[in-house]
Amino acid sequence: MKHGVLIVGMNGATANTTIVGALLGTQEELALGSITSGMQGLSRHLSRESSFVFGGWDVSSPSPLELANSYHILPTEVLSRSSPILESLRPMRAVISRHDTMEAKALAEGNAEHLCELERLKSEIAQFCQMNDLQTCTVVYLASPLALAEPAVLNATLTDLKLMLEKNDPRLPSAILYAYAAIESGAAFVDFTPNITLDVPGVQALAEQSGVPIAGRDGSTGQTLMKTVLAEMFQVRNLRLKGWYSANILGNNDGIVLSRPEHRELKMHDKLAVLEQILGYDGFAHAVDITYYPPRGDSKEAWDSVDFTGWFSQPMAMKIDWQGRDSILAAPLVLDLCKHMQFAQSKGSIGIQEHLAIYFKQPIRTGALAFSAAARRLREYYQ
Amino acid sequence: MKHGVLIVGMNGATANTTIVGALLGTQEELALGSITSGMQGLSRHLSRESSFVFGGWDVSSPSPLELANSYHILPTEVLSRSSPILESLRPMRAVISRHDTMEAKALAEGNAEHLCELERLKSEIAQFCQMNDLQTCTVVYLASPLALAEPAVLNATLTDLKLMLEKNDPRLPSAILYAYAAIESGAAFVDFTPNITLDVPGVQALAEQSGVPIAGRDGSTGQTLMKTVLAEMFQVRNLRLKGWYSANILGNNDGIVLSRPEHRELKMHDKLAVLEQILGYDGFAHAVDITYYPPRGDSKEAWDSVDFTGWFSQPMAMKIDWQGRDSILAAPLVLDLCKHMQFAQSKGSIGIQEHLAIYFKQPIRTGALAFSAAARRLREYYQ
Amino acid sequence: MKHGVLIVGMNGATANTTIVGALLGTQEELALGSITSGMQGLSRHLSRESSFVFGGWDVSSPSPLELANSYHILPTEVLSRSSPILESLRPMRAVISRHDTMEAKALAEGNAEHLCELERLKSEIAQFCQMNDLQTCTVVYLASPLALAEPAVLNATLTDLKLMLEKNDPRLPSAILYAYAAIESGAAFVDFTPNITLDVPGVQALAEQSGVPIAGRDGSTGQTLMKTVLAEMFQVRNLRLKGWYSANILGNNDGIVLSRPEHRELKMHDKLAVLEQILGYDGFAHAVDITYYPPRGDSKEAWDSVDFTGWFSQPMAMKIDWQGRDSILAAPLVLDLCKHMQFAQSKGSIGIQEHLAIYFKQPIRTGALAFSAAARRLREYYQ
Amino acid sequence: MKHGVLIVGMNGATANTTIVGALLGTQEELALGSITSGMQGLSRHLSRESSFVFGGWDVSSPSPLELANSYHILPTEVLSRSSPILESLRPMRAVISRHDTMEAKALAEGNAEHLCELERLKSEIAQFCQMNDLQTCTVVYLASPLALAEPAVLNATLTDLKLMLEKNDPRLPSAILYAYAAIESGAAFVDFTPNITLDVPGVQALAEQSGVPIAGRDGSTGQTLMKTVLAEMFQVRNLRLKGWYSANILGNNDGIVLSRPEHRELKMHDKLAVLEQILGYDGFAHAVDITYYPPRGDSKEAWDSVDFTGWFSQPMAMKIDWQGRDSILAAPLVLDLCKHMQFAQSKGSIGIQEHLAIYFKQPIRTGALAFSAAARRLREYYQ
Repeated sequence: MKHGVLIVGMNGATANTTIVGALLGTQEELALGSITSGMQGLSRHLSRESSFVFGGWDVSSPSPLELANSYHILPTEVLSRSSPILESLRPMRAVISRHDTMEAKALAEGNAEHLCELERLKSEIAQFCQMNDLQTCTVVYLASPLALAEPAVLNATLTDLKLMLEKNDPRLPSAILYAYAAIESGAAFVDFTPNITLDVPGVQALAEQSGVPIAGRDGSTGQTLMKTVLAEMFQVRNLRLKGWYSANILGNNDGIVLSRPEHRELKMHDKLAVLEQILGYDGFAHAVDITYYPPRGDSKEAWDSVDFTGWFSQPMAMKIDWQGRDSILAAPLVLDLCKHMQFAQSKGSIGIQEHLAIYFKQPIRTGALAFSAAARRLREYYQ
Repeated sequence: MKHGVLIVGMNGATANTTIVGALLGTQEELALGSITSGMQGLSRHLSRESSFVFGGWDVSSPSPLELANSYHILPTEVLSRSSPILESLRPMRAVISRHDTMEAKALAEGNAEHLCELERLKSEIAQFCQMNDLQTCTVVYLASPLALAEPAVLNATLTDLKLMLEKNDPRLPSAILYAYAAIESGAAFVDFTPNITLDVPGVQALAEQSGVPIAGRDGSTGQTLMKTVLAEMFQVRNLRLKGWYSANILGNNDGIVLSRPEHRELKMHDKLAVLEQILGYDGFAHAVDITYYPPRGDSKEAWDSVDFTGWFSQPMAMKIDWQGRDSILAAPLVLDLCKHMQFAQSKGSIGIQEHLAIYFKQPIRTGALAFSAAARRLREYYQ
Repeated sequence: MKHGVLIVGMNGATANTTIVGALLGTQEELALGSITSGMQGLSRHLSRESSFVFGGWDVSSPSPLELANSYHILPTEVLSRSSPILESLRPMRAVISRHDTMEAKALAEGNAEHLCELERLKSEIAQFCQMNDLQTCTVVYLASPLALAEPAVLNATLTDLKLMLEKNDPRLPSAILYAYAAIESGAAFVDFTPNITLDVPGVQALAEQSGVPIAGRDGSTGQTLMKTVLAEMFQVRNLRLKGWYSANILGNNDGIVLSRPEHRELKMHDKLAVLEQILGYDGFAHAVDITYYPPRGDSKEAWDSVDFTGWFSQPMAMKIDWQGRDSILAAPLVLDLCKHMQFAQSKGSIGIQEHLAIYFKQPIRTGALAFSAAARRLREYYQ
Repeated sequence: MKHGVLIVGMNGATANTTIVGALLGTQEELALGSITSGMQGLSRHLSRESSFVFGGWDVSSPSPLELANSYHILPTEVLSRSSPILESLRPMRAVISRHDTMEAKALAEGNAEHLCELERLKSEIAQFCQMNDLQTCTVVYLASPLALAEPAVLNATLTDLKLMLEKNDPRLPSAILYAYAAIESGAAFVDFTPNITLDVPGVQALAEQSGVPIAGRDGSTGQTLMKTVLAEMFQVRNLRLKGWYSANILGNNDGIVLSRPEHRELKMHDKLAVLEQILGYDGFAHAVDITYYPPRGDSKEAWDSVDFTGWFSQPMAMKIDWQGRDSILAAPLVLDLCKHMQFAQSKGSIGIQEHLAIYFKQPIRTGALAFSAAARRLREYYQ
């Protein structure tokens, strides 16, 4: 039994690492950093990386293997292994809209009309499933965060969306075209980025109508994960949060894109909303800086300066320096999500998969949950 | 309805802050830092600080108010309030053994024989309850950590203990005399320090025979608390711990005592055992340093350097600088425990109170639990 | 012998702390944090705080003592001392221009024409000197950083400046009016902020023509100071800098103003230029974030993440968390500068005082110097 | 013209890295981290690594190349280069005494009598010089820190030393035998470890009589270097040090040895003495922890928590996390010292080379100097 994974932005660092790692890694190498491998009893319900067939779209054309060698993320001894499937893998032509990054817009070939592109994507998905004899297919959005969409899009019903498609409305972000195509093709859709795609009522309606599971948004890999972990401690211990400052330094393409205000907006929102949602109060200072810092490469450093008060309002503080690795943290979560979506499809789970909240900064519908509460939800779903 | 709280070592910084704060603070000032105030639905089961009558033993004689003014832990405007009860409060004479600190031994008047001291303690408890017309009474051990007791004590049955008492055996630590006296008097007993008192089978047996609740050991206030919080994150995310180094700098009396190997031994054990117990594996490096550093005063700084690996065994790290306040963190937990023990007595809960694991580094019987699991246990007990 | 100190922005936190501290503090309390007190042999050349008479301008009217009580920067026991001079002190009406902050513009009464304001300032300086029987007078600019001036101003000759004054040119920043008034009045002028005032050729020419000493710009108190200290270590040890990321969190008015791009521009420049100037090479990443974070108050936290390589280009790193206090660090330097300027006037030192480079992020003419080199320059000047 | 470098403990990590790096590295790879390469004008006086011939003694026998491959300190592409000289290199048999580590004592063959070993060492040095046709030779002590020597040794005159040699006195540490042999052979002697060898009056006298330069002690590579850099800032800025806590975690053999009290004693002294010597006052808290932490390997992490006060005694703080690499930092300094000693020999500089203070934690005779003062001394020597 084979399962398809189609990645939007398949030549980005995380997507590339996910694909190349999954195809070249041993079961043991792939286990660390994966929730489904760590959580007792989960793996027996789920498919393995070896059952996955990968594909995807990108504005850039280099082969995944070539790219992996330039990214220096996976160990060289892993990259020196061979895989005939990997060697033949190439991205399909990406759809873009004015919300894409200027680099993507410069690289992309001209788009056709919305309906035309939609048809192309659907036929590519169908062909991918047929040629590979796939049981299920999941489309994962991993391209650079888009500029924030207009309110008309954010609030669009399914009828609105259809009209926008027909009218070739330039306000329609490319990510919605992918989601639309996936869902209409019966493929699950995951948004691992801060885009608003799955918040749009029309997209949710389409998923429900089409009987397709969806999950998002904005993968929780490092600093925000820590916030969901520590916020619970503050809450249970009744230590009152007074302020939380977060600096982020990134040296990869994400760093460049997120240093631009229009692409950063949603990411900032997602990072900032977490604390209030979990603590249940506001009235504290919360600031986040994201800065492009080339020496970090694909590594990711975050520094948090946290102020809180205890008994008799006495001030205390905590500082955390997190030295993570962007793609190494994200890739096993992306693969986890594909396994969960495959399982959801096999079970007939439809619409927003709330039990996957642990994977996201801003899980659709539930909002941010305390880490342990989110873990419990996942555990209970599989019991 | 009044409830008694008798503190062993009532002139130490945490004990003094607990008593003076409870007697002078407003309901609002006392709420922060208290789990029972933060956890929804708990407070309605529990008594308030205003129903507590305080007393205790110490080797030093100054009045609590005098001491509080020298400790500089509670805000001066709080200390300038008046309380007739507080003003009349004085410690009773402490019992000591060779396991006490050299400072305690220098200050203490000569002990009488074990049985004689035991009788004295019991009659003091009885008198305290009678004079104050108390419904229940809890004895809390907050004196300096004792030197490690001999294995004969650690494994002593109730019969062994009785023999040691009769023979005036010098291996019997003073803390066991207090526990014995409390339990035989029908008072609950809490050990907030790293002593082995409640691990002794004979002490547990006595509590069960006497129908008395007990809870311990070693209050979890800062760095170890963080370990119970973060260990769960590592476990659920399946990030493999490779090493955890912890430095602690303290400037109060605890810092002096814990800088001595014989008094540090158990504290170190309690700090070190936590990670393996929660993670369920060993094979990582774990080191803890505790250093006396006078400029910190009653504040407490802890620095953790944590190494872990993720996907494809790629190394990542986290560093945490915790700038807490020792007594400000501990006092509301001590008061919480008195409320829980009063509730346990009213419900007829006997022996080790496992639902209080969240308060301790090494909760008796359960061992260290992940923070959220411990919080759930507490929540469930009151449902 | 009395010496005048007139502060532009005298109701800001640093200016207020400087004045109130100097008038209420003992010699001993004023010594720490002062270079002239620490550097052997300097103090005998210099006047003391007790010989200083203070005054200044501001858009806000509250009395210095009232403000000091709200700033919570100086200890309350100091503020409870009395000083008749301090009690009678009030700011004179400030001059502003479109480069001032929106808060200043909202508070300020309407300006008269440039020449008219210039005359007013000069007559206020003259009156201040005469009434207080002053030997010398120094004007110190401590108001909020102005928005960056136009290139026409930055490159203006003395003739250009005169024309701008006559034509009431709105491009002329208020700070230049103060400098102009001070210099024409024979008063020394110090710019402790990132304004370009003293970089303007016309201002330098006026100081030389008028025989007046000037010094600036942008006081070096914390993070940038550390850069001048550490850059020398990297240079001498031949460790190659690869990147330096600096986060700054501030909770005072400076934090609000510097969080606005137009007011931050020069500060950023000054912070960024330091490393290249001292190291003598570029090619490393250097980024600075400045974020308003109210919980910090007048305290100032800076976090630096520094990357460098050594033998065989092996990467190493350093992280520094600096927990300073803005006004407490700045005030003794401001007083130091007033003493140096008084000495310069007594010696007939004219124009840019290069030996004061140690006090500034971007010392005019010399550019940033390694800390020890700057210290040596100061020491040598007084030998 | 060839110059000899004989290393005591040549199979330790730093010594091995020094030798293998010097023989396999390019001029450019060797430059970073070297003071003589960074300091303008120095290199023209000094010999290059390519003129060095290496040898040495050790208790372990593996070949340097074999070891380098297990140490993982130098990049693999460097280790894959070939060097006929390196391939033939083997350690000579080490001398030991009871002060050596238990590992060394277990590995060592039995020592002969002192005078006999001394003669052997001298003849080995002579043979090394003759066979390689060397102009000069320097012996560098890089073996594990010895246990502290008895006072009788510390205060020994040359006459005392001779007597101890003759009587085969077991109190004589092995390091003194090496120093004695080197100096009597006319070879310069450098002690890069915390041993007291060069503090002994008799060793200094022998060097002066023999016309040989000596330099030590205890190489300054990381945390202590930072102290010499920052202490100057505190002094010039008149910020009063209140406390300095330093944690060190090391994962190499040095970490194991220094975790033993008897071998740590001198290292601790050297680390602790620095601040008072530079600041010129005491009365602050100063504590250092050194902990063996295997995950760090040859990397070295140091965390410093520094407390100081400024104006009106207001408290401020700094925390520094230094993530260095032990051998990578030390090796270029060892090579620098060999070049300096060769130059000293060519110039006829005799006895303690005070201008090399910048290289040591406890430079003999001068004591610790502020970093910039030490740099100036070195610079001036070569002018």
